[in-house]
Amino acid sequence: MKPSLPKGTRDFGPLQIRKRNYIFDIIKNTFETYGYQPIETPAMEKLETLMGKYGDEGDQLLFKVLNNGDFLSKADQDALSAKDSNKLLPSISKRGLRYDLTVPFARFLSMNRNDLPRIFKRYQIQPVWRADRPQKGRFQEFYQCDADVAGSDSLVYEAELMEIYDRVFDKLGIEVTIRVNHRKILAAIAELAGLGDQFISFTTALDKWDKIGKEGFAGELKRLGCDDGAIEKTLDVITKGYENDEVKQVLESTSAGAEAVKEINQLNKLGGFDGLANNAKIDLTLARGLTYYTGFVFEVEGKNTGLGSLGGGGRYDDLTGIFDYPDISGVGISFGAERIFETLEAQNGFPEFSLSSSRVLFMPFDEESLLYSYKWCTQLRNAGIPSEVYPSPDKLKKQFRYAEQIQVPKVALVGEKERTSNVVGLKDQKTGEQREVGFEELMELLK
Amino acid sequence: MKPSLPKGTRDFGPLQIRKRNYIFDIIKNTFETYGYQPIETPAMEKLETLMGKYGDEGDQLLFKVLNNGDFLSKADQDALSAKDSNKLLPSISKRGLRYDLTVPFARFLSMNRNDLPRIFKRYQIQPVWRADRPQKGRFQEFYQCDADVAGSDSLVYEAELMEIYDRVFDKLGIEVTIRVNHRKILAAIAELAGLGDQFISFTTALDKWDKIGKEGFAGELKRLGCDDGAIEKTLDVITKGYENDEVKQVLESTSAGAEAVKEINQLNKLGGFDGLANNAKIDLTLARGLTYYTGFVFEVEGKNTGLGSLGGGGRYDDLTGIFDYPDISGVGISFGAERIFETLEAQNGFPEFSLSSSRVLFMPFDEESLLYSYKWCTQLRNAGIPSEVYPSPDKLKKQFRYAEQIQVPKVALVGEKERTSNVVGLKDQKTGEQREVGFEELMELLK
Repeated sequence: MKPSLPKGTRDFGPLQIRKRNYIFDIIKNTFETYGYQPIETPAMEKLETLMGKYGDEGDQLLFKVLNNGDFLSKADQDALSAKDSNKLLPSISKRGLRYDLTVPFARFLSMNRNDLPRIFKRYQIQPVWRADRPQKGRFQEFYQCDADVAGSDSLVYEAELMEIYDRVFDKLGIEVTIRVNHRKILAAIAELAGLGDQFISFTTALDKWDKIGKEGFAGELKRLGCDDGAIEKTLDVITKGYENDEVKQVLESTSAGAEAVKEINQLNKLGGFDGLANNAKIDLTLARGLTYYTGFVFEVEGKNTGLGSLGGGGRYDDLTGIFDYPDISGVGISFGAERIFETLEAQNGFPEFSLSSSRVLFMPFDEESLLYSYKWCTQLRNAGIPSEVYPSPDKLKKQFRYAEQIQVPKVALVGEKERTSNVVGLKDQKTGEQREVGFEELMELLK
Repeated sequence: MKPSLPKGTRDFGPLQIRKRNYIFDIIKNTFETYGYQPIETPAMEKLETLMGKYGDEGDQLLFKVLNNGDFLSKADQDALSAKDSNKLLPSISKRGLRYDLTVPFARFLSMNRNDLPRIFKRYQIQPVWRADRPQKGRFQEFYQCDADVAGSDSLVYEAELMEIYDRVFDKLGIEVTIRVNHRKILAAIAELAGLGDQFISFTTALDKWDKIGKEGFAGELKRLGCDDGAIEKTLDVITKGYENDEVKQVLESTSAGAEAVKEINQLNKLGGFDGLANNAKIDLTLARGLTYYTGFVFEVEGKNTGLGSLGGGGRYDDLTGIFDYPDISGVGISFGAERIFETLEAQNGFPEFSLSSSRVLFMPFDEESLLYSYKWCTQLRNAGIPSEVYPSPDKLKKQFRYAEQIQVPKVALVGEKERTSNVVGLKDQKTGEQREVGFEELMELLK
């Protein structure tokens, strides 16, 4: 049997894991510094928890797990006869694989509402599964990294989450722009455009701005029924941007706009924009996720990465309503781990990792030297120094090939001569330099 | 909708994750100290990779994932008409969830044989899924922690893996016995019993020794056809134990036994038994996993835990033969993470963890104090000190309740008085002690 993997899935070798953990550790440490707490939810959720939460397309892309045992014995007979897969599904499958981390979090909150702090700051880093058509950079199993706060509508958390973005990308050495917008700003602009009652159509059109440009957007407005005056006024506001005093006045003239401006000022006082290492700004063209976001929305873009969004998030007023737990305001962000990985690869941004963590490989010339090596190695390990012994007195050529394969920085050669003098021949694999060292010196060199 | 979890699955809250990571970090660090390298494989494998590897029962307990889309359109029509679930399966499901970490590792080795070091030391810590009937301490989703070496039959690795067991349990503060046996020792004893050609039946009977005792085992031997003399000789060897000189001589009189004794002596020279903090010994009644183990077998038992095995492993001569990659010798061990968790809970063996990592919670009396608090908090976070701000000037009682909920050790009270003096009122939540401190002192106290 020739083994292979299901399409859209991947193995992760040691180097990939070391690199991925480098990213995750920076994200985790930052979350913890801000008082966010880890949770994990099971890979499988009940299908009823998942279905209907991600739209029709999402329902199709969910991986469904077949009931165990004689699943046909309880199958819907009509659906079987009609060969109707969709109708048959509920009777042969009760579980599905996690599709994102937000719905499981909402389910978790709702189930544990009496045991959790009133304000719950959680982070979660786990894989999710989607039956998307695999393509370059898109997989059926991939990690999501989310941080959310539930149970408070304070803008302190918007400020925190923007800082977390800023700090993580700063530590990773990726220069980014944090784009910010507010649903009520967009409501105000829709009102100006005369599209107050077509808010979602308006934001869907605006969301294409980056692709279709100003002219294309004007065409979309026309299709939605805007007259030329309204189109001109709308384009004027958007192109001048939020920092323009006239624009701010225009926005403040609507009640939604006035509320948003107040919140932006408050966020500013909390250091939301100016105190950051990266550029953060109100971007009136940012119009993502407005079917669920109800306040601020965020998007992080790498400078010159050409990879689009490296993360996004926002405020949602009713996080857990679907699970019968009303009036819980939430705000959260997500990191696009795959794209961050690609960005760091492209800009050579990872530290240098070896396949093995071992700092030295002992190479014995004979059986006696193997035992001698193993004893030295044990003492290094006792001191917490990763190290290993080539496990048999093979030809040196073979041993050196292994040393190269595991990318160990130093090798310690041991034959009768070294044993008699109670030393090893320590060779630096990069410089080729070699000299005899005793145990204490070896320990010092490797610490 | 009232949310719930699929049976046999669990959420992990912050405290559980901190405790679990405490265990995993000790295991991981030890693996790395010995030069083992991390890999991860996908949750889903092709069903053809998994089926037939775990026996008929295993095939039944595999979670199968339904093909996406209109799965009935390509279903086996005969099986559908006959309502034969088993026959229908291959035509509607091509993937299953990982059942253990050994088969995926063998698949990984076989697929990547040309890119891996000739000897590959890998560890893997990931969840697996089994449709077992859930019961106390048994779940359908649980973590496995494995370390294996592939591509060498050197006993250096048996020595390493025993040391790893010893070190991990020593660091965890769990006293254990490492029981060791060898397939060839058991072959020698089977030969003495006249059951050389019924080896698996013999070891299956011996495996029950702990439960049925000496008398029960004698009965099993009788049932297998042993005469009374052979039974007596066999019981004598097993009860006297390996360290008895007569027993050693008897074992060495068979060729299998002589080979095993030689290997045990070699392992002893590598410090396999005496150099350890825990008790490690040859236990002639240990007879686990002998349908696949071909050399040494290991089992770790907690002293007085009453939980049975905390881990096990052994040598298998043909790890990847099923994947068309012959003659790869492997040796590996596994940690029973669930039982280790239970053991530490029972003996209060975990360090003290808080729900939140925050070392201080700022409590503002008014809006102005909130901004002041947030600025102090940002500076602490800049210094890497986990901290947070209560996000609004709520009543102090409410703020204190939150402090208790997140189990933060210190709170910093901030009102107009504190702001004017450029201090906070720092209160220790355990002692109740409270005094005014400036920023530098606060930083020192929390570092």
